[in-house]
Amino acid sequence: MDLWFTEKYADSGLAMKVRDVLYRGESPFQKMAVLDTFAFGKVLVLDGAVMLTERDEFLYHEMLAHVPLFTHHDPKRVLVIGGGDGGTVREVLRHPGVEEVILVEIDEKVLEVSREYLPQVSGSLSDPRVRVLCEDGVRYVGEAQAGRFDVVLVDSTDPVGPAVALFAPEFFKGCSRILGPDGVFACQSGSPFFNLNLMKDVHGHALAAFPRARFYLAPVMAYPGGTWSFLLGSKGSSPLPQCRREAAFETRYYTRGIHLASFALPKFVEEAIGG
Amino acid sequence: MDLWFTEKYADSGLAMKVRDVLYRGESPFQKMAVLDTFAFGKVLVLDGAVMLTERDEFLYHEMLAHVPLFTHHDPKRVLVIGGGDGGTVREVLRHPGVEEVILVEIDEKVLEVSREYLPQVSGSLSDPRVRVLCEDGVRYVGEAQAGRFDVVLVDSTDPVGPAVALFAPEFFKGCSRILGPDGVFACQSGSPFFNLNLMKDVHGHALAAFPRARFYLAPVMAYPGGTWSFLLGSKGSSPLPQCRREAAFETRYYTRGIHLASFALPKFVEEAIGG
Repeated sequence: MDLWFTEKYADSGLAMKVRDVLYRGESPFQKMAVLDTFAFGKVLVLDGAVMLTERDEFLYHEMLAHVPLFTHHDPKRVLVIGGGDGGTVREVLRHPGVEEVILVEIDEKVLEVSREYLPQVSGSLSDPRVRVLCEDGVRYVGEAQAGRFDVVLVDSTDPVGPAVALFAPEFFKGCSRILGPDGVFACQSGSPFFNLNLMKDVHGHALAAFPRARFYLAPVMAYPGGTWSFLLGSKGSSPLPQCRREAAFETRYYTRGIHLASFALPKFVEEAIGG
Repeated sequence: MDLWFTEKYADSGLAMKVRDVLYRGESPFQKMAVLDTFAFGKVLVLDGAVMLTERDEFLYHEMLAHVPLFTHHDPKRVLVIGGGDGGTVREVLRHPGVEEVILVEIDEKVLEVSREYLPQVSGSLSDPRVRVLCEDGVRYVGEAQAGRFDVVLVDSTDPVGPAVALFAPEFFKGCSRILGPDGVFACQSGSPFFNLNLMKDVHGHALAAFPRARFYLAPVMAYPGGTWSFLLGSKGSSPLPQCRREAAFETRYYTRGIHLASFALPKFVEEAIGG
């Protein structure tokens, strides 16, 4: 039997040949599936959208974690909102100075399913430096102490369903409030090919919450369009981009050169966000 | 009727919803089709592989043309091998100093089909500065005068069928021979995610033919993996990358910042070609 999965997006989509459907289920927040595919290994699908694949998750997770952490002069306390699969936390923990990581994932089922089917991603969550909270990230940020964190990373789904509030202006302000004086914020901000309006909104919210905010890009094979954007916000006084240390650990995509280069934006993106 | 086209590649592939099949035919070299798709506009397909789409061809063509042309101090005479669709020539002609472009396309049918179905790409070929030759690019390079060109661009299909000889070491040496003292060469060199072995070969051939050779990357939505590589070879004495002028014309992807950033390579690519 030739089984294929295609995440359809704007009348196109990446098709993957499927070896097996390992899991199908549903939480109060979303539908969930884990596929075993020939080209991408195991694939986590939420509400029909690919969240991560074993083959290419390093691209997204390295870039969401290392660019902000190497922008901060000495990150010790890191908050991750979303990202219940554990991939972003895994990369954060590679930084030897990090003492405490709090992961706030709203959907317990994402944690469970990732623990069962994606151990090489979710294994990070049992590290003693990590505390996993299963609650609403917006409420957590609202209640956290001012200046509590060095870095806040938002590893959300796209702005539908439970993630809508993570793209609201108040949430960016809240994240800024709970960051220390040199604090750094990063979130995923969609595809430059398909989500320019989202990027414009995110850019506006970030500029209202942080003295400095810049987009950076990375290839992500399994996401629509193959290139993804991230927004970096900084409370520090140094201009962006900056990379304060060399990676003293193994990476597969990230380098200091990639860090600095990832802030170069296509002309059509510059024009869209320029106004 | 819901009609979909998928270029299958390593058990995955980009699926596109098709409005109409505008052309299907065959030349002595390859099978050909032009599809009208909802997401990507018109799409030229050669032997089942997407060559270009109206929606994203600017990414590939701007980067294949502008990076080498802005690396050269004053390009006047440009040779394009392949690229019968005319997209690369269109971008070359935006450089006001260019006086002469020779396009050598082996397959007359590509020229014909592009002229009929993709006029906004192929229209460049009727510019008075352009001469179109329908012949074997390898033979042309073998017979051309030493130092005849300032820039040579190889806009080929992947190394199967007629394009195999365009990836041979002798061809790189031939291109170097017909370039002037500051001459610049560029070719497409496949996907960093799927064609690392090809990239290693191309790198070796280029280093044997040019004093300097470096890869650069660009997102190309419709190509497998969504990111594509190009090899730049230079006979000049200045190190790469360099960008000698600002673009004094409209671009949609290319900027000076993108030019310089595109040479930053993922760690896994650095490691693969480093040896």
